[in-house]
Amino acid sequence: MDAKIKTLVESLIMNADTSFVGSVNDQGFPAIKAMLPPRKIDGIHAVYFSTNTSSLRVTHFRNNPKACLYFCDRRSFQGVMLQGFMEVLEDQDSKDMLWQEGDTLYYSGGVTDPDYCVLKFVTQSARLYSDMRTESFLFA
Amino acid sequence: MDAKIKTLVESLIMNADTSFVGSVNDQGFPAIKAMLPPRKIDGIHAVYFSTNTSSLRVTHFRNNPKACLYFCDRRSFQGVMLQGFMEVLEDQDSKDMLWQEGDTLYYSGGVTDPDYCVLKFVTQSARLYSDMRTESFLFA
Repeated sequence: MDAKIKTLVESLIMNADTSFVGSVNDQGFPAIKAMLPPRKIDGIHAVYFSTNTSSLRVTHFRNNPKACLYFCDRRSFQGVMLQGFMEVLEDQDSKDMLWQEGDTLYYSGGVTDPDYCVLKFVTQSARLYSDMRTESFLFA
Repeated sequence: MDAKIKTLVESLIMNADTSFVGSVNDQGFPAIKAMLPPRKIDGIHAVYFSTNTSSLRVTHFRNNPKACLYFCDRRSFQGVMLQGFMEVLEDQDSKDMLWQEGDTLYYSGGVTDPDYCVLKFVTQSARLYSDMRTESFLFA
């Protein structure tokens, strides 16, 4: 993936107002849920979200970590899909890393709330939809 | 599903400017793609799209018809996910049914173009995200 494309993909991820997160349920059906934008990205290799430990999504990913993320810009008709694995992190360092002021609105117990956890998505491949063309990339 | 909820779900489907379509690829990873709004819906039981027969999405659904659709309204924070099966229809009656003026832009051969086909999604279950609550419904 050249630098220009990497910049475009990072910009699509960071500027999207919504993240669409895909999982596979126990019956083998795909599931899609809208989530807030990621809290942090590490290049295109890792994308971090905060979520409720008790959510159905977390149950899906514990049973089957295969996942995808989709980000798009409706004005430019550009989109990117990342496929990879979703890890559910409950260690305090990860929880501290993503915590933001105001999060007690979602997690009343604060940064150590057991219902607060981190989803870390690790990218295996990317598919870019841009200018009516489609390009795929594999990550090492 | 009561009439009020059915009306809400139909309105979310018909008013969304983008449809998010989920599939499962040969390696078991979920995939998400943005598509134009559906061409036709039959209540909440069937949702029809037009697409290119040669697309990767069609290959996915021929191999594994398990699918989902996601529609949302960002202003009201309401969304609906439908899970079910996607059929790839290539019979002329189905192609005639969805054809619209201007479609030669996408399918240069017209309504009989072999690269034009119909995706018919048949709903098995629905999950509604509304007012911070989540409700699930099964279809017979």
